[in-house]
Amino acid sequence: MIRERLDKLREGMKASGIDCYLVPTSDYHDSEYVSGYFAVRRFFTGFTGSAGTLVVTKEEAALFTDARYFIQAAKQIEGTGITLMKMGEPGVPTLKEYLEQVLGEGEVLGFDGRVVKAGDAKEYEKILEKKKGKLIWNKDLSEKIWTERPSIVHHPVFVLAERYSGESASSKLSRVREKMQEEGADEHILTSLDDIAWLLNLRGDDMKNFPIVLSYVVVTMEKVLLFAKGKREETKDGEECEVWTPELLDYLKENGVELRAYDDFYGYVSGIHERSVLLCKGRVNCRVEKELAKDVTVIDKPNPTELMKAVKNPVEMENLRRAHIKDGAAVARFMYWLKKNIGKTPMTEWSATEYIDKMRQENDNFIETSFDTICAYGPNGAINHYSASPKDCLVLKGEGLLVVDSGGHYLEGSTDITRTFALGPVTAEMKEHFTLVLRAMLNMRATRFLYGCRGNNLDIRAREVLWEKGLDYKHGTGHGVGYILNVHEGPNNFRWKPLPGQESAVLEEGMVTTDEPGIYIEGSHGIRIENELLCRKGEENEYGQFMYFEDLTFAPIDLDAVEVSQLGEQDKKRLNDYHKEVYEKLSPYFEGEELAWLSEATRAV
Amino acid sequence: MIRERLDKLREGMKASGIDCYLVPTSDYHDSEYVSGYFAVRRFFTGFTGSAGTLVVTKEEAALFTDARYFIQAAKQIEGTGITLMKMGEPGVPTLKEYLEQVLGEGEVLGFDGRVVKAGDAKEYEKILEKKKGKLIWNKDLSEKIWTERPSIVHHPVFVLAERYSGESASSKLSRVREKMQEEGADEHILTSLDDIAWLLNLRGDDMKNFPIVLSYVVVTMEKVLLFAKGKREETKDGEECEVWTPELLDYLKENGVELRAYDDFYGYVSGIHERSVLLCKGRVNCRVEKELAKDVTVIDKPNPTELMKAVKNPVEMENLRRAHIKDGAAVARFMYWLKKNIGKTPMTEWSATEYIDKMRQENDNFIETSFDTICAYGPNGAINHYSASPKDCLVLKGEGLLVVDSGGHYLEGSTDITRTFALGPVTAEMKEHFTLVLRAMLNMRATRFLYGCRGNNLDIRAREVLWEKGLDYKHGTGHGVGYILNVHEGPNNFRWKPLPGQESAVLEEGMVTTDEPGIYIEGSHGIRIENELLCRKGEENEYGQFMYFEDLTFAPIDLDAVEVSQLGEQDKKRLNDYHKEVYEKLSPYFEGEELAWLSEATRAV
Repeated sequence: MIRERLDKLREGMKASGIDCYLVPTSDYHDSEYVSGYFAVRRFFTGFTGSAGTLVVTKEEAALFTDARYFIQAAKQIEGTGITLMKMGEPGVPTLKEYLEQVLGEGEVLGFDGRVVKAGDAKEYEKILEKKKGKLIWNKDLSEKIWTERPSIVHHPVFVLAERYSGESASSKLSRVREKMQEEGADEHILTSLDDIAWLLNLRGDDMKNFPIVLSYVVVTMEKVLLFAKGKREETKDGEECEVWTPELLDYLKENGVELRAYDDFYGYVSGIHERSVLLCKGRVNCRVEKELAKDVTVIDKPNPTELMKAVKNPVEMENLRRAHIKDGAAVARFMYWLKKNIGKTPMTEWSATEYIDKMRQENDNFIETSFDTICAYGPNGAINHYSASPKDCLVLKGEGLLVVDSGGHYLEGSTDITRTFALGPVTAEMKEHFTLVLRAMLNMRATRFLYGCRGNNLDIRAREVLWEKGLDYKHGTGHGVGYILNVHEGPNNFRWKPLPGQESAVLEEGMVTTDEPGIYIEGSHGIRIENELLCRKGEENEYGQFMYFEDLTFAPIDLDAVEVSQLGEQDKKRLNDYHKEVYEKLSPYFEGEELAWLSEATRAV
Repeated sequence: MIRERLDKLREGMKASGIDCYLVPTSDYHDSEYVSGYFAVRRFFTGFTGSAGTLVVTKEEAALFTDARYFIQAAKQIEGTGITLMKMGEPGVPTLKEYLEQVLGEGEVLGFDGRVVKAGDAKEYEKILEKKKGKLIWNKDLSEKIWTERPSIVHHPVFVLAERYSGESASSKLSRVREKMQEEGADEHILTSLDDIAWLLNLRGDDMKNFPIVLSYVVVTMEKVLLFAKGKREETKDGEECEVWTPELLDYLKENGVELRAYDDFYGYVSGIHERSVLLCKGRVNCRVEKELAKDVTVIDKPNPTELMKAVKNPVEMENLRRAHIKDGAAVARFMYWLKKNIGKTPMTEWSATEYIDKMRQENDNFIETSFDTICAYGPNGAINHYSASPKDCLVLKGEGLLVVDSGGHYLEGSTDITRTFALGPVTAEMKEHFTLVLRAMLNMRATRFLYGCRGNNLDIRAREVLWEKGLDYKHGTGHGVGYILNVHEGPNNFRWKPLPGQESAVLEEGMVTTDEPGIYIEGSHGIRIENELLCRKGEENEYGQFMYFEDLTFAPIDLDAVEVSQLGEQDKKRLNDYHKEVYEKLSPYFEGEELAWLSEATRAV
C-alpha cells in the first residue's frame, strides 16, 4: 500500500517537474502535534510517530526521525522500500546533508510551503543555490493521491473569561501594537495557534490536547483580522456544528476583530503592499513569506505574544495554584487506588491510564488531558514518550516501578506532573536511582538566583546530582508550560545545551517551568519525578533582584521508593517541608481511610 | 595642563575637519593593558586607570569608565572640565548612545584607527550612516600635541624551547594552515600579541607583566611574515639592545619566518589583492580592515590560535603542575612570614607586596609577576583591582583580613592565585563570609560535568552558595589563563552572563580556568579565594564523556578565618583532602619550624 502511494507520489513529482519531494510532519501553523488532515507523512510512510520527515527522489525514499522512534519507525516502514535515517547517530547525514547528496546539478526540490517553516526553506534554498537548482514551494502532491483524506476539523469556539485569562483581548492587542510601533511594523502576521488563542482569549477544540482554534491572525494599527472557519461547519463526524455563536460574533466585534474565511489568508498576505510586516520566520510557514510582495519590508523578530504569554499574570498565577491543587488531588487519589489494589485487582498500563484520566475528569472545570497520559511499567519506563494502548500494554504486577506522566487542561490553567511509583518490592539500584532523581528535583526547585539568569545557567542544579555518579538523562530538565495551550511552551526552559536556534529566555516572574530529572536504564526501569515551578521575585538588594521558585505541583512522592539513608539533611528537610505542604493543600479533598493514607504518604522521613 | 591639552586637541580636530574625536585605551594589538607610548587617553585626561574612553566634541569632553574606577577617575579628572560617564549606572548613556546624542547631522567622527577594533568601528559607522556623517579613521591627533611621548619600547626576544612549549612553531603553523584551508583563506592576518607569541614560540618583554614581542604576523600557505622591530633598537633607557640575535634570526629562518619592519605592516596589508583573508574583526584594529583593497574577500572568524593556545598540550600541562607547586611554596612562605611577624614587625600593604614578589623571584625560571600584586587590607579588600603604592598604602595591624591576589610567569607557565588571610581576630561576619566563599570555591572545583558544557552552565556551582544567602560578587567566577602570556585569556571562563560578544567556550581537556568567588563589603572587608583548575577528561560511558577539574594551585587556605561549624561534611572532606595534597606537594620545599607550621596550616578540620 505504501509502495503504491510512493509510486503515485513519484508520478506526481514527474508531472510537476520535481526531482526531490519533502514531506515534513507539520500543519500550516508549526504546531507540535498533527493529526487528521495534516498527517501526510504518516499517509506516505505508515509511520505513526509524532516527528519525522520523508524525502522522496526518483530512486530513493528516506525517513528522518529521532531516537525516540528508531524502533517503532523501523517496524512500521519495513518492506516499504523507505530507508530509515536515524538522526543523530554516527555516520547518518542530517536532512540538509542528505539533500546536498541527493540533489543533482540543476535539479528541482518541491514541497507544500504551508508545512515548511520559512526559516527552514531558506536553508534549503542555500543548498539549491549551490546546485543551481530550483524550488517549487506550492505543491501539495498528496491532494490527488490521498483520496480519503479526512477534512479539516472545526469545533465550537469559546471565550476564556477574564477571571481565567486575567487580561482582556483589547489590552493584549494594545501591548502587541506597542511592540509593533517599537519595531516600526505596520502589520503583524501571527500564524501560531497558541499565540492566537492567547491574544484573543479564545479557545476551541480543533486539535487533541491542544484547545485552540485553527486560524491565522493579522494585526494592524487599525484592525485585527481573524482568518478562521465560518459560522456553521461540518465536524469530523459529518454533523454540523455552530462554530461561532452570535455571542462570539459580538465578542469579536467588541474587540475590533473582523472574521474572515480561513482560506482567504494567503490572498490577504499577497495583497499587502508597501508596508512593514512583523513576523517570525522561525514560526510562519514558507508560503507566508513567499506570498509577500517585493515592496513589503519583513521585520523578522519573535512574536511579541511569545514572551507575553509565558509571563503569567497575577490572575493566571492564582488560577494555576488552584488548578494544581485539584489536579494533585486527582493524582493522589490515583496513587491511593494503585497502592491499595496492586496485586489484588488486575491492572494494566492501560487500565491505570484510564483510571488516572477518570480522576481528572471528575474535577471541576476540566477541559481535557493536556497530553496523552504516559503510563509505563518496568522496562517501558525507560522508553521516553512510551505510549500504551488497550491492545499493547503490560500487566502491572506487585513489584517494580511505574512511571506516570500526565496532566490536564482546566479553565484555571494546565498541569503536567510525573510521579514514579513502587508497586511492591524494588531493587536496591532502583531505590538508589529514585533517590538520586528525587535529590536532583529537590535541588533545582530550591534554586535561588539573581534576575538575568536563563535556564542554561540553572540546569546543572538538577543534573549535578546525577553527573556526580556518572549518570544523566537525555532530555531537558524542564520546559515552559502554557495556560490552556501547549503543554510545551517557550521561550523559558531548563536546558544546559540550547535547542538549535532557541536560546533559553531570561527567567521572569510569572514563568512556569517543569522540573523533571530522570534516570532511564534500558531493559530495566525508568524513573522521572516532575513538579511545575512558578518563578517569583524574592529579595532585592545591592546585588540585584533575587528570584526563587514557588511550587505549583502538590502530590505525594512515593516514599516506598526512597532510600532515606542516601538523603542528606538538606534533602530531608526539603522533602519533609514539601510533603507537609502537600498534606495541607490536599487534605481538604480527602476523608476517612483515604485521609489517613494521605497523612502516611506525606509523613516526615 | 589637561585643559591646555584638550584645547590643543580641539585645534587639531578643527584643522582636520573633525567634530567629535575618540580616544580609547588600547595599543595597536587590542592588548588588555597599555603603557608608555600607547597611554594617549591618560595623556589627555590625567586618569590613570586601565580602562576608559575619552570623547571630545567642540563643547564637551566625556570620559567613559566602569565601576572599578568611578572614585579614582572622578578624583583624577576634577577641574579638567571632563564629565565622568559612569558606565552601567542608571541614566548614563552607553558610548554608542552618547555618540548618537552628540553627533549632529553630517558631522565627522575621528580617531586613530589603529587603537579602535574593526568591529567597534563598524558600530560607529552605523551611527554615522543614520546621521549622514563621515568617519576619519587615520588621525592620531596626539602626535603633534604629545611632544614628550615615550618611544615604543623593544626588548630582547627569546625562543620558548619545546620542553616548555610542547609543540614546535612549524607544527603550530601547519595546524593554522589547515584551518585556513578549511575556511578557504589565502592569507591570515594576526595582530594580537598573545596569539603571535604562542604561534611562533617567541617571548619578549615589550609590555609589563605580558612577556610578548610587539609585532604583527601574516601567514600564507607559502610563508610567514613577522613585522617587528629590527636587529638593534634603542630601549626606553636610551641604550641600544640586541633585539634579534643571530641565533634568533636562524630560528626564524628555520621556521620559514621572514622578518619585516614593524612599520611596514600596513603597507603590506594594502598591497594584498584578489585574495581571501582570514582575520577576526573582534581583534584586529579598524585600520587593518580599512587598508584592505576592495578585491580582497574578508573571512571574519576567531583566530584559529585562540582555541589552540587555550587547550594546553601534555607538556604544558606537566610544566604547569611544576610551576604551580613552586609558586604555591612561595605563597606559603609569604603566609608563614605574615602570620609570624604580624603585630611584631611593622608591615604595610606595600611591604607585604614586596615580600611576596621577592618570594616568587627566588623561584627557578621566574620571569616576572604575571600582574601587579594586589595586596588589600581591611576595607581596601572590598575594592576590586585595588592597587597599593609605596606612598599610598595601609599599615597592616594584627586584626582583620588581608586579600593577596598575585601570580608569576615562569618558563613552565603562568600562575594566578588569591588567598585571604586573617591577621588576628576577625569578626563573626568575616568568618561567616570567608566560609561561604570557601564553600563556593570548593563546590566549583568539585564539579563533574558532561563534555559540551560551557562556563555559563557551570558558574552557578560557585555562586549558588552565596545566592542562597542573598550575597553575590560582581565579577566572573573565573577566567582562562595563558601560558606565559595574558593572565586573562579566552575563550574559556566561568560566567553566568556572557561578556558582550563573547560566548563562553565549550570546556576542553587542557583548558585552565580560575575558580575565584568572593564577597566584598564596602568600607569593611573583602574576601576572595582563587585556585586554578585544569579541565580533564574523566569516564566515558553511554551518557557521554564526563569531565572534571584537576587542581593546579596548591597553597594553604587560612584556617584561622574558617568557621568550621558552618562547613558541611562534604565541604570538610573537600577541604581536608585538598590540604592533605597541599602538604604533600609543598613539604619538600620546607624544613624545621617552617615545615611544622605548614603541617599545622594544612591540618584536617
